[in-house]
Amino acid sequence: MKLISVDTEAIEQHYAVLNRIGPVDGDPDNGFLRAPYSAAETAAISYIQQVARAAGLNCRFDAVGNLIVATPGSFSAWVETGSHIDTVPGGGNFDGTAGVVAGLAALLAIHSSGTVLQRGLRLRIWRGEESACFGVTSIGSRAAFGRLDASALMHNYAGRSLAEAMLEQGADPELIRAGRPAIDKHERDSIAAFLELHIEQGKVLEACGKDIGIVTAIRGSKRSWVNLHGTFDHSGATPMGPEFRQDANLTMAYIMVRLDQLLRQANSEGADLVQTAGLVNPPQQPGSSLPLGENAITKISGAACFSYEVRGCDAESVESYCDRAFALIRETAEEFGTTVAIETFSDQAGIPNLNPELQKLMTESCMALDLSYTSLPSGAWHDAGTLAQQVRGDGTTIPVGMIFIPCYNGISHSPDERSTPLQIARGASLLATTMIELASI
Amino acid sequence: MKLISVDTEAIEQHYAVLNRIGPVDGDPDNGFLRAPYSAAETAAISYIQQVARAAGLNCRFDAVGNLIVATPGSFSAWVETGSHIDTVPGGGNFDGTAGVVAGLAALLAIHSSGTVLQRGLRLRIWRGEESACFGVTSIGSRAAFGRLDASALMHNYAGRSLAEAMLEQGADPELIRAGRPAIDKHERDSIAAFLELHIEQGKVLEACGKDIGIVTAIRGSKRSWVNLHGTFDHSGATPMGPEFRQDANLTMAYIMVRLDQLLRQANSEGADLVQTAGLVNPPQQPGSSLPLGENAITKISGAACFSYEVRGCDAESVESYCDRAFALIRETAEEFGTTVAIETFSDQAGIPNLNPELQKLMTESCMALDLSYTSLPSGAWHDAGTLAQQVRGDGTTIPVGMIFIPCYNGISHSPDERSTPLQIARGASLLATTMIELASI
Repeated sequence: MKLISVDTEAIEQHYAVLNRIGPVDGDPDNGFLRAPYSAAETAAISYIQQVARAAGLNCRFDAVGNLIVATPGSFSAWVETGSHIDTVPGGGNFDGTAGVVAGLAALLAIHSSGTVLQRGLRLRIWRGEESACFGVTSIGSRAAFGRLDASALMHNYAGRSLAEAMLEQGADPELIRAGRPAIDKHERDSIAAFLELHIEQGKVLEACGKDIGIVTAIRGSKRSWVNLHGTFDHSGATPMGPEFRQDANLTMAYIMVRLDQLLRQANSEGADLVQTAGLVNPPQQPGSSLPLGENAITKISGAACFSYEVRGCDAESVESYCDRAFALIRETAEEFGTTVAIETFSDQAGIPNLNPELQKLMTESCMALDLSYTSLPSGAWHDAGTLAQQVRGDGTTIPVGMIFIPCYNGISHSPDERSTPLQIARGASLLATTMIELASI
Repeated sequence: MKLISVDTEAIEQHYAVLNRIGPVDGDPDNGFLRAPYSAAETAAISYIQQVARAAGLNCRFDAVGNLIVATPGSFSAWVETGSHIDTVPGGGNFDGTAGVVAGLAALLAIHSSGTVLQRGLRLRIWRGEESACFGVTSIGSRAAFGRLDASALMHNYAGRSLAEAMLEQGADPELIRAGRPAIDKHERDSIAAFLELHIEQGKVLEACGKDIGIVTAIRGSKRSWVNLHGTFDHSGATPMGPEFRQDANLTMAYIMVRLDQLLRQANSEGADLVQTAGLVNPPQQPGSSLPLGENAITKISGAACFSYEVRGCDAESVESYCDRAFALIRETAEEFGTTVAIETFSDQAGIPNLNPELQKLMTESCMALDLSYTSLPSGAWHDAGTLAQQVRGDGTTIPVGMIFIPCYNGISHSPDERSTPLQIARGASLLATTMIELASI
């Protein structure tokens, strides 16, 4: 096994530039805002392109704006890595970006080692993986494989539809509208393996002191808006109790508490799910006609809503739990005299099993590199999941593996999100060593 | 007893004009927005002034912008009525306005009857009774008696501070800043009695089919912001349970449910209180530095807040309940690993007993006018409460009475709020008959 080592200096050098692209109010301490198909995302991608070209790698964009960096030469099979470089509003510069930086560093290290490859190497920078802005996840990777529903083009963020944002950044929404992939069958079938490095976004690796997490599965997610209509009424003159008050805010509180109790029970009975109400009565809810603006301190609330997300690796388990949860929501709304509408806007099945051979190879590479490791599932969705769903011409799926690196206190989607250059460099070394092994077969 | 009858035509005529002042999006079906010290509130007051002047009544404004309509002549004692003409955003045209219209109709009816009075009659239109906009109640009546805390001048609504809004409508915030009343001692001591007609804002009169409610007491209110700080974190990668998640939204839901259960228990043990969380995660919370904007669908919420209002006639009962409620809020926040700050921004003691002689006189007037009636407390605060709190030079308080009229389904602070012209005319007849009786003593 040929070992490739990525040093921390290479990682630090890329971060010195990327820390200046999209910090909130100009200060990385406030976190970053590189929205999907924004000028800031394009600027970050351009930096990667510039470094790759200067080192003699080939660069091109697909029709939906994903950047592809490739080692020179003509190959019938390619070993690929990739991640995303967009952020949630106020997120850190590591979720996605660490995988892009590690992938770039891995390709550069292999390229400069002069090793003769049997297969080519590619790095893909997927556009818009984060769903916080447009409400849909993995825009770039799903669009690349023709798996993005065209309705997403009408979602709005910061005064632009996704279609408008794409056009502004030189990408083509028509392909999505037509349901056509940006990666043709031949290119798809040439992907021999796809690896993604990502920060863990959890506390397991830090808690057990491991350098590397070898990912076994990926949680999917089902996301809905729960919209409640109550009756606006005077807060002083209306007696307590559901026979007098149809209080949307109070109904929402009861629903959230009962859902919490329902999930505790389900997990204690063997389910492995998480659920979150991240947004409660948000000022801008896409497509809603709820009169949230009429709520007031002195009124019983006539409207309330929250985002409801359930995540799990096993799609059937998510589905059957959501059936119970939605029934509970409807029963509770009825009990409090309010009406409820549940609108599921995103339903992304998880990946119950990532490729076992790749997990084995990464394990061997860790041992050869003297890196400590453990196996674990991914709580978050990743572009790697999109790849794992693609069926090739011969009926097989693309073999997909994921490398997790530790991140401080498990925090992500926050200005406090961070991994050290050493943690990223170790992951990049594992990525490079695994890729060169796959490319030498 | 001289009976004065107000006909429905007079009421309908005023509403035909007032329905055109401040409807939301130009349509009364959407409710009204006449904010405190807004151009719309001024326009409604100007209409009353114009009608009163045309009928030969005197009009003047006090220094904080309240309109005073008076019968001609010089008197050492005055029988007064009054209410407000502002609305909550999206509220109806009856809360307050019905009392102004009835008061105007009563004065006009008495004036045109040519009755010789021993005491003068006055109608006061108080500015800004509703707290939904500036977060403080009875601005005009409290300022008139020097009882408005100067800090209220800095509260903001629609991009203006209260001080700025007052200046725009020709009122003087300096008086409030200096803590000086707009009604001097002599004028205050000349108020022999004050009566306010108001819609019930509850369902009691409608349910028992009575024309009139004779009000026995007024609920006060204590209003606070409950601000919660949690930890922003990834919604997929963070396990469930308070040991992993410091979820501000979920903590808030548990607090709201537990408060609901606490009040059910307190009321079953003899308390007579209501509580409401009218605003949950509002987009603009005055003076807050909570990072609500960083909440997202895919993040565990790091911030949440709600307005918490407790109302009761007896201030001690409100106070002791709030002590228990605040302790429960703090315990629950701690249990979920979040931090909480409770900021009480308004604490208005109730009026445990309105003037008994006035209640008796109104009862006799009802019988004389053949109006059905019942006695009941007021769930809502009213300007009449401010009057009831004023001590005159001789150490007595101003005698205050309140007349409730039924309103449809008990609804108020809503576009569906309404009373019929007949319901208002009956109340105005009672008001006029009671006032003329008091003015003939």
